[in-house]
This record gives sequence, structure tokens and C-alpha cells, in this order.
Amino acid sequence: MLEKLLENLKGLEPSRILLQVPEGLKPKVLEFAREIEKLGHEVFISAEPCFGSCDLRDREAEKLGAVLVHIGHTDFGLKPECRVIWEEYRLEFDPKPYLEQNLDVLKRYKTLGLLSTLQYLNSLQDAKEFLESRGVSCHLGIPAGGQMLGKARYPGQILGCDLTAALSIQNLVDAFLFLGTGRFHVLGLVRKTEKPVLMLDFDSGKLEDLTGERERLERIRQACIEEAKGSKHFGILVSTKPGQFRPELAVKLKKKLEELGKQVWILVFDEITPEKILGMHLDILVNTACPRLSEDLERFEKPVLEPEEVDRLFEKPQKPSYE
Amino acid sequence: MLEKLLENLKGLEPSRILLQVPEGLKPKVLEFAREIEKLGHEVFISAEPCFGSCDLRDREAEKLGAVLVHIGHTDFGLKPECRVIWEEYRLEFDPKPYLEQNLDVLKRYKTLGLLSTLQYLNSLQDAKEFLESRGVSCHLGIPAGGQMLGKARYPGQILGCDLTAALSIQNLVDAFLFLGTGRFHVLGLVRKTEKPVLMLDFDSGKLEDLTGERERLERIRQACIEEAKGSKHFGILVSTKPGQFRPELAVKLKKKLEELGKQVWILVFDEITPEKILGMHLDILVNTACPRLSEDLERFEKPVLEPEEVDRLFEKPQKPSYE
Repeated sequence: MLEKLLENLKGLEPSRILLQVPEGLKPKVLEFAREIEKLGHEVFISAEPCFGSCDLRDREAEKLGAVLVHIGHTDFGLKPECRVIWEEYRLEFDPKPYLEQNLDVLKRYKTLGLLSTLQYLNSLQDAKEFLESRGVSCHLGIPAGGQMLGKARYPGQILGCDLTAALSIQNLVDAFLFLGTGRFHVLGLVRKTEKPVLMLDFDSGKLEDLTGERERLERIRQACIEEAKGSKHFGILVSTKPGQFRPELAVKLKKKLEELGKQVWILVFDEITPEKILGMHLDILVNTACPRLSEDLERFEKPVLEPEEVDRLFEKPQKPSYE
Repeated sequence: MLEKLLENLKGLEPSRILLQVPEGLKPKVLEFAREIEKLGHEVFISAEPCFGSCDLRDREAEKLGAVLVHIGHTDFGLKPECRVIWEEYRLEFDPKPYLEQNLDVLKRYKTLGLLSTLQYLNSLQDAKEFLESRGVSCHLGIPAGGQMLGKARYPGQILGCDLTAALSIQNLVDAFLFLGTGRFHVLGLVRKTEKPVLMLDFDSGKLEDLTGERERLERIRQACIEEAKGSKHFGILVSTKPGQFRPELAVKLKKKLEELGKQVWILVFDEITPEKILGMHLDILVNTACPRLSEDLERFEKPVLEPEEVDRLFEKPQKPSYE
């Protein structure tokens, strides 16, 4: 499974290595470490949760004097503080039985845009062949790449912060079909496109139509913004994860909010979790880190705005139409 | 409350500041930030939990281009990666009513060694005067200081990793009296001294005799060591917190354990918590970070050894005496 990585590491002088894997690969990490150690390297395993290529433990590797081996995500062009060896990780998974099972629904669409995340990308080609043999034509969009939010690399690949593979083909397809796991990727898409969005969950085999979530999410956003207009105490969230670190944006947002008479504090996290700000009296949070966090509303028990939504606070409050 | 800090900051060119406080001061941190901001500084608040002077967010401050203001702990001589301004924080608390209430028990001892942590140190002098007026003579031990584990600075001050203020006077006192909060400081002491150890809890006002814990803790340690002797898979815990970072010790312990035929992995954390290693099959953990962690056994649901205890694995298993 790690052939390419082991080949790369063979070429390396015996080194100290910090090994980082996403949560889904934690059960395998001891085994990976052992394989790498067999080549003569000294291996440390990063135990911190890892949520993406943005979440690179480069400073810890540098502190250890180690080369960072990061498994499971696409390098999206960060400038790390240590040498990094990236190892993509793809699961082999046959989507055909699940597609077969849900064909009635899928055949309602003439053209589907297929999407997935890195680990299931190999399934997309199988899915495309299968669906086209059943009369549904399929597209895999090409991510924009290279730009600030262009982090995906492969046809059909989406990330929490890069939906360009989908958006580039929205005019060509009748609906999107996401194949894999992780509902939050799809909810992000639901908000960005007007096309129907389906998810075929590779854990349960169930096909879910998430299009109906669009209106619900928009209502929640609207409610957050209205609540923020009437609120006083704002916390702006900054993460120190290399691919999420935007302190200057936080300073800019603080100034904007202060123009509106708000009381604003900037809070710095590694991983942003609600319990870290327990006991601080804040009404509204503004998230400058991972864009998926804002959809994780319930955990915070208070509204979390996206940076773009701060501008909407300058709009007048909506008045009931009978006035 | 922060007069000295604010005076120091007045002398500083308007700077970016990363403000770090321990958990107990989190409810006040927004107010602190506002005070500092009024002096013209740009303030970021560290939201990460902070457990001591060992737990310095210096790398985050450096990344932000900020001066670190660390409130509530004693500088114990780390070499941080940014400029740090330390502000000790002491609470005013009158221990006399609680002492009065428990005088019957306290008067059983002719001489007490008084101990506390930084925030309640001001109470020690009041307690000494009160107890001596009631016929109990009191000592405040002087921390060893300057050495590897000499981190406390003031008479009577103990830290999770520095009990020298107590140990220096154990031959002079009939018992120790800890005044303050945080049972784990006292449990550490119970294991290191043979004298009785009492705790007067400033939250509840209750006096507790922890001497009986000594035997229970020793039984637990013994059981951990015996279990470790028969176990195969070991994880050595390293923390990247500046005052807890001991990777070379971890490498040394790994080699030692491998001499015993153990399978060993080194795991790197910021804060060490059980959920970060869920899914990894490890039988025994060895902690190279905060020494108080080993007493926090229940959370890990597996034995956590101290580095010194690894040597005890080389002893033969204890055999029942009838053999």
C-alpha cells in the first residue's frame, strides 16, 4: 500500500521521521511506522488529529529535527518549515453494487457530475463506466488549481476548501453525485451550486438527496447574520495550522466589526473546538480557518459566521413586510 | 490586578501580543486583552488550554510576530523562541476561617510544613501567623531552584514537577499542609514523602488527610509495573510543550524496552489525551512529559509508566511467597 513511500524513503539517508496520518488511518499507523523503521529510520508518530493537507505538523517535525512524512492528503503547495514527503493514499473500493442498487434514482438524471475525495478517487472511473453503460452520462470536473482556493489536483476531486472541480461543470450536468464518506464536503457543495446534490455513502451504501438541505442551510445562515447584527461580543477564530493561518484577515475583520460598534477579540487555536472558549462571554464567532467549521454549528452553541458574511452585517436588518 | 504587567507593557513600543492565561483565568481573559489593547497593542488571545510555565505558546507567538504575555505561572527558565513577558498572578484569599474550622485536626501536629501553588502563595504567610498564634509551629521550605527539576521560586511553592520546597523540610515537620486547590499536586507529594499530607481545599473549605492514598497509589504503581512486564506493545508519550519536550529520553527508553523484547512506538502530542491514540493497539504507555499525567490514570484506561519505572521492568516478576 505504501510502496511508493517506502521506495522514496529507501533513497533517503537514515533519518528521523515524524509520521502524520489522518484520523481514518490511525489504526494502521503503528504498522506504517514499523515498515519505515525497517529501512533504518527513527520514527516518531504524530498523535495529534489531522484533518487535511492544511494541517501539517511541520513545526513539530522541525523541532524534532525530523523529515515529515504526511500520508493521505494532496500536497496543495504550502511552504512548510521542514522537508515533507507527501504520500497520497487511495482505497480500492468497488462502487458498482451500490450504484446498481440505487440505479432507479440515478437514472432520473441524464448527466451527472461525479465527485469524491482523494482516498476514493479510484472509484470515480469505475462509477463513470458503470453509469454510462446504464445510459447516464458522467463528467469529472477539473479543479481550478494554482489559485488561493485551488487545492484539489485530480479530476473529480473536492476538498473542504476547494469545490472547483464541481463548480467548473455545473452548467454541464443535471446533478452532482458525490461518492465516498464525509457529509460535510457535500453540504459545502449544496450551498455553492444550484444543481441537485446526491451523496452515495460508501459506509452505509445509502443514496441521499441533499438538495433539500440548501434551503435549511440558507435559513440558518440568515438567522446567524440577523443574530450577529444585534449582538455585541464577537470572537474571531484563527488557527495556527499552516494551511489555515490567516491572522491578517482576522485583524481586518476586527476593524470592520468595530466600525459597527462591536466588541471584538481575536482567538488563536491549533484545532478549533468549543470547550477551549468555555467561560469567555462571546455571542458570535467569525471563523477564518477551515471553511467547513461554520457548518459544524451545533458544537459551538452559538452562531459562527464566515468572513464574507461580516459584510452582510452592514445591511439593514430585514423588516417584516407589513411595515 | 495586572498593574505590573500594564506598567511593563507601557514601556513597550505598540506591538502585537499573544496573550496566554491558565484555564482558571480564562473567564477574565477578554477583560485582560481589552486593558492591554488600550495601551495601543494589537492583542491575540491564545485559546489553547494552558497548564503551566512548561506550556508556553512561544512558537505560535513567533509565527504571529508577537510578544508573548504569559500570565499566572512562574518563569522557570525555558529558552523561548520569542520575547516573553511573564506576569505572576496571585489571588487574595483569607485562609483563617477555614483554618479555624479545622483547628482540632491541625493542632494534632506540633510542626507543619505549609505548601501552596503560585496563585495562593500570599495565603501562606497569613496561615503561618494564624497557626503559630494557636500553638502550631510552621515552616515554609525553600525550593531547590536552578536544577533540572527545580522550577518553583518562592518559599512554600510547589509545582507539579517541583516538590523540592516540601522535600527540603521533611525532616523538620510532623506533617505537610497544602493550602489551595488541585489535588494532583498533593498526590504527587504523597508519593515522595513519608510524612502525613493534609490538604485544605480552598474551594470547599474541607480538610482532607491524603496520607492513606500513599499505599493505594503504591499498589497501583506496582500493578502497572507487573502488567507492563507481561505486555508487548508500548507507546512512549512525548509532548512538544517547550518545558515537557524530551524526545531523546523517549529514544533511550525505546531502546531499553526493545532489549526486553517489547514492541515500542514513540508518539508525539501537544496536549496528551487518551482520545488521540484511540484505535492504536497499545498495552502500556510511558510518559516523558508532565509527571502529573501518570496519576491521571483512569482517563487512559491503560497503565501509564513513569520513565524511572522502565528500569523496574528488568526486575524479575514477584513470585508468591509460598513458592
